[in-house]
Amino acid sequence: MSPRRLKVAVSGLGRMGARHALHFLNRTPRAQLVAAFTPDEKEIAWAKKHLEPWGVTLYMDYDEMLQHEGLEAVVVATVTTVHAEQAIKAIKADKHVLCEKPLSTSVEISQSVVDAARPKPHLKVLCGFSRRFDPSYRDAWSRADSGSIGRPAIFRSQTCDKLDPSGFFVAYAQFSGGIFVDCNIHDIDLALWFFGQDSIVKSVYAVGVTAVQPELRKYGDVDNGVGVVEFWGGKIAYLYSSRMMAAGQHDMTEVIGTEGKITINANPISNLVEMAEPSGIRREIPPHYYGRFEEAFVVEANEFTECCLEDRPLPFKLTGAVQAVKIGCALQESLNSGRKIWFDETGRRVERGML
Amino acid sequence: MSPRRLKVAVSGLGRMGARHALHFLNRTPRAQLVAAFTPDEKEIAWAKKHLEPWGVTLYMDYDEMLQHEGLEAVVVATVTTVHAEQAIKAIKADKHVLCEKPLSTSVEISQSVVDAARPKPHLKVLCGFSRRFDPSYRDAWSRADSGSIGRPAIFRSQTCDKLDPSGFFVAYAQFSGGIFVDCNIHDIDLALWFFGQDSIVKSVYAVGVTAVQPELRKYGDVDNGVGVVEFWGGKIAYLYSSRMMAAGQHDMTEVIGTEGKITINANPISNLVEMAEPSGIRREIPPHYYGRFEEAFVVEANEFTECCLEDRPLPFKLTGAVQAVKIGCALQESLNSGRKIWFDETGRRVERGML
Amino acid sequence: MSPRRLKVAVSGLGRMGARHALHFLNRTPRAQLVAAFTPDEKEIAWAKKHLEPWGVTLYMDYDEMLQHEGLEAVVVATVTTVHAEQAIKAIKADKHVLCEKPLSTSVEISQSVVDAARPKPHLKVLCGFSRRFDPSYRDAWSRADSGSIGRPAIFRSQTCDKLDPSGFFVAYAQFSGGIFVDCNIHDIDLALWFFGQDSIVKSVYAVGVTAVQPELRKYGDVDNGVGVVEFWGGKIAYLYSSRMMAAGQHDMTEVIGTEGKITINANPISNLVEMAEPSGIRREIPPHYYGRFEEAFVVEANEFTECCLEDRPLPFKLTGAVQAVKIGCALQESLNSGRKIWFDETGRRVERGML
Amino acid sequence: MSPRRLKVAVSGLGRMGARHALHFLNRTPRAQLVAAFTPDEKEIAWAKKHLEPWGVTLYMDYDEMLQHEGLEAVVVATVTTVHAEQAIKAIKADKHVLCEKPLSTSVEISQSVVDAARPKPHLKVLCGFSRRFDPSYRDAWSRADSGSIGRPAIFRSQTCDKLDPSGFFVAYAQFSGGIFVDCNIHDIDLALWFFGQDSIVKSVYAVGVTAVQPELRKYGDVDNGVGVVEFWGGKIAYLYSSRMMAAGQHDMTEVIGTEGKITINANPISNLVEMAEPSGIRREIPPHYYGRFEEAFVVEANEFTECCLEDRPLPFKLTGAVQAVKIGCALQESLNSGRKIWFDETGRRVERGML
Repeated sequence: MSPRRLKVAVSGLGRMGARHALHFLNRTPRAQLVAAFTPDEKEIAWAKKHLEPWGVTLYMDYDEMLQHEGLEAVVVATVTTVHAEQAIKAIKADKHVLCEKPLSTSVEISQSVVDAARPKPHLKVLCGFSRRFDPSYRDAWSRADSGSIGRPAIFRSQTCDKLDPSGFFVAYAQFSGGIFVDCNIHDIDLALWFFGQDSIVKSVYAVGVTAVQPELRKYGDVDNGVGVVEFWGGKIAYLYSSRMMAAGQHDMTEVIGTEGKITINANPISNLVEMAEPSGIRREIPPHYYGRFEEAFVVEANEFTECCLEDRPLPFKLTGAVQAVKIGCALQESLNSGRKIWFDETGRRVERGML
Repeated sequence: MSPRRLKVAVSGLGRMGARHALHFLNRTPRAQLVAAFTPDEKEIAWAKKHLEPWGVTLYMDYDEMLQHEGLEAVVVATVTTVHAEQAIKAIKADKHVLCEKPLSTSVEISQSVVDAARPKPHLKVLCGFSRRFDPSYRDAWSRADSGSIGRPAIFRSQTCDKLDPSGFFVAYAQFSGGIFVDCNIHDIDLALWFFGQDSIVKSVYAVGVTAVQPELRKYGDVDNGVGVVEFWGGKIAYLYSSRMMAAGQHDMTEVIGTEGKITINANPISNLVEMAEPSGIRREIPPHYYGRFEEAFVVEANEFTECCLEDRPLPFKLTGAVQAVKIGCALQESLNSGRKIWFDETGRRVERGML
Repeated sequence: MSPRRLKVAVSGLGRMGARHALHFLNRTPRAQLVAAFTPDEKEIAWAKKHLEPWGVTLYMDYDEMLQHEGLEAVVVATVTTVHAEQAIKAIKADKHVLCEKPLSTSVEISQSVVDAARPKPHLKVLCGFSRRFDPSYRDAWSRADSGSIGRPAIFRSQTCDKLDPSGFFVAYAQFSGGIFVDCNIHDIDLALWFFGQDSIVKSVYAVGVTAVQPELRKYGDVDNGVGVVEFWGGKIAYLYSSRMMAAGQHDMTEVIGTEGKITINANPISNLVEMAEPSGIRREIPPHYYGRFEEAFVVEANEFTECCLEDRPLPFKLTGAVQAVKIGCALQESLNSGRKIWFDETGRRVERGML
Repeated sequence: MSPRRLKVAVSGLGRMGARHALHFLNRTPRAQLVAAFTPDEKEIAWAKKHLEPWGVTLYMDYDEMLQHEGLEAVVVATVTTVHAEQAIKAIKADKHVLCEKPLSTSVEISQSVVDAARPKPHLKVLCGFSRRFDPSYRDAWSRADSGSIGRPAIFRSQTCDKLDPSGFFVAYAQFSGGIFVDCNIHDIDLALWFFGQDSIVKSVYAVGVTAVQPELRKYGDVDNGVGVVEFWGGKIAYLYSSRMMAAGQHDMTEVIGTEGKITINANPISNLVEMAEPSGIRREIPPHYYGRFEEAFVVEANEFTECCLEDRPLPFKLTGAVQAVKIGCALQESLNSGRKIWFDETGRRVERGML
């Protein structure tokens, strides 16, 4: 008999949920996708075709799915607004959890997931910061960690989406928490990774513009944001996010140390093809984040599975996800108030005069 | 119940055979690896650990393996010298076959595989030209096929290995057929793909040097070869192969048409990381061909599986593999004789005076 | 007889002054270098060898030099602290002036040069923002100006020096005005160019760290600075400057518009050579700004000369130089105060409550 | 008084001649352009405007120009067919000579220039292989010469022109000597430089196609040529030339040694600008060779001038120019005969049976 496989369910079969389901079904040898939940008829139709024939039970009730016999782990990939609630229910039902980022757009609610997980140390609860599983970011981190760039002092990172002329992201902005929480959350998490997970935020500051979608303002959001995060100990992260890239998705990072610099994806590519044409030399870049991070998601599925099966520690802690949301929310607040926000050396928010 | 999966066996568990086995085991959802053959004790030991626990039956006798119950397809990944024999046996046993390239270093023996397959049109018999499954090459081919570079006239392609100071490839040269058959066979196959599978060779010419391994001369081989292949109809492929790349594997191609040029992997990368250091800006490249073509092998496994299951035509014909060996062998002969070799408009070899 | 040439003097023969002198002597066909001033014995010795033999009269008194017979134009390339004084003297003596940037590290003193020039509209008075003459920046500007990226909304630019382990820049910081005035002044000037010279600053904000030279703090300076400048009308420039690049000088800019993006020098190179080595693929980059901008300085010399000879308008106005210093000084102040600085729609500094 | 300058005349004011004239007039401080010759009325008109006002005497008779008072050096930039004749006349008149490449499309005539120069060792006679003065090629050569890539064994080089739809190069082919003499002559010269000037050709082989201009066949020429040159001692140069590049001029070289590889201009650029557009990321490349090699020509003018003034040896010998033409002509012959051409270890042409 083959070694046992982890019984996994996926909650939410939207764009990313469907991908997670297929990753666990087809590209995670040690996992067995046994169940999926979605309240959406169209998604159920898709699942009947792409999941059910392979033995995946479909549910339109999340709680019912949690009771699927033998279920061991749940991937929460629904809309952000129910991430925390579903994660907490799964934890209470004694399931391992891989929850899409962010846990919540609220710091308090994010913290409640951590609080729910604390009494269950035997469970693996992972916030899906997919870039942590990306081979390029991991290579960069190993190099930095080995001291090859000296001490990292400046961190620049951006999450920039291809312009979607449909304006989808305007409606989306109501629930996304804003561009700093929705997009730069990844960059903030990376900053905490490269600077050290125990880095304490000292100040945040953000500005932004609505260059292509003025309606975003009604949700307190922008389509281009610039944020600056100081950490105690002489470290600065500066961030950019955008919804209007012409060429495609361009998420990139540079880590600048006292002895060198590492860049990740400074020159995006979709593959290894270049065209020489009368207008010059041209290459294409991935249109969406999945084109950039597909492999990272698959690695994430496999590592999460192995950590659950072998009771190994996850590669990073859940508490970092709260830190990232805290910084993201502060940036979003600064964007809207026009004010710099200060934190003391314990990371507690203070008025400036109190420092 | 889940839809049925193709029952596959892998023959040969050396470096590439082991990879094929894992691809079919873990990364080809519609295939089921049921059996594996190797005559090698060390490889059996590896398989007991990595294959057997997942229900793969191990055989030390190829013929016995062919009789594995329900077996539908065989991947031939042994040493080149037995490729043809094993492929033919599998065909006779009514199995689909994915045979590693080349079918043989002999044109006649290669042809014998084609001959064996001809009476069994219901079988899928594929020669594993992995680059045909590489996303970058496929993207390039689609672009060229859509006319974006006009009419392709010049084709440049190279297969260059990282210098292996162990000199492994000297012993290997005894059986490899020589650098043009072992390395440039891929480039020749690509030339036939981009110029059109019905392209007829007009002449071949090759030279070479032994820059790092003079002992290669005793096997009629070189460590750096340059070959030129003319095709009837005004098309030229020029090829380079090397065993002494310092930085890593660098396989690349450029297709030059009357209105543009497409390059594939002109700038090799191992990932998206770049280092800025006191000595400049640096990136690493894959050390071996698997680092470059891993994804292509996985696509190959999946497409072969689907073609077998759904009785769809393979993406390219087996006869092309004979064409490629024929050109590769002629290049190798030209290398050693110092003479240009001519072919008439039907592709038959002729003396020059006969044209 | 050949057409007349502009009679030029260079003041200051330090590193950049000596280069200016040689540019006007050898690479500005329509100029004639007739005089040079320096109070420095070592520089005089250099000039005796490299300038005097070609008919350049050397002066150790600036005022005396201004009376050199027939002198028409002065290049002010002394230390920043005397830029303004010398420029004003030259203007009063009715000479055209090319003054190295910045006019002064003080807004008021910078303005005094503009004031001195105003009554002499027949004189050409240029602040040497060399990047305005760089072919790549000019190409980028033409593309942006022609609408190829839609409306520019975000501007990112950096001026980053190779780490100089001698710590020269610590002493230099006493007079440089700080990293935002010394380095980012170029980026600020470029922002004004690409966003439109009439752009009005709305707010500035800066932070920084001393990662390699803590002594900089005593001069209120840092070795890595991040600044954010908002302009009225929905435009943001964010800037980075550093003294600790490992690989060399890396000055780069990206201009992000509603329909596309232009980058200038995202991938720095010193020439067209690449090395493939066991450690990967490597290229070198210029160690200093002159390696990047040599050609720009020569174009500057030639265009300044032509504008003087033919009474053509200079490519940009002197007033912009005051704007750039104003923004640079505000960034430096924000760096040290930790506060955001606000300006009203006329560009006048205000307290936030007043907006 | 300024040190004396070399009195130079330029013969031929066509495209490249005019550039040489301006280089010596404006960008070669130690030279003084005193005279220019052209038999062409249109070129005289241009010269009256751009040269005469600066004191350059114009001649419509070459012999008369040679008698210009004080003339020390002549730049021969006329059509190839008179290069040798004019160079020899200048040598006989005791002038230094910078002759555009090739000396002639005939080996014998090229040799006659060398023969004419031999009795006048005090004269500097240079064949203008401009790439020898290009900073990137020089950097590459220094690196190779210092042993950084081990022993160079394989040399790949190409000279590829942007497609000129006017078909100008068809008429030009009558006199150009063919694509291997006209274009690849540069690559051959570079091979001799990187492999060692004393390298002896062992064999040459060439093929080609007329992909865009079939009429070239009537002059025994092609629009795409591939050539292979073996040198005694285990060295191979393989060459490509083309008249149909879509994107622009792409001249590049790679030198592959036993321990590394150096490439020059593998990734051509016109400047440091990149555009991110809906169709991807794009850069432009120089449309013509002058866009690539302008600086090399200026360096050439300056070094030639200095060698003349200071009686220093030229950076390379005139005899190499004959070697290059010999190889170029042999390639062109092989292209047309379809035969490999052999040379013995002294470089004398032989039948194969004689080796």
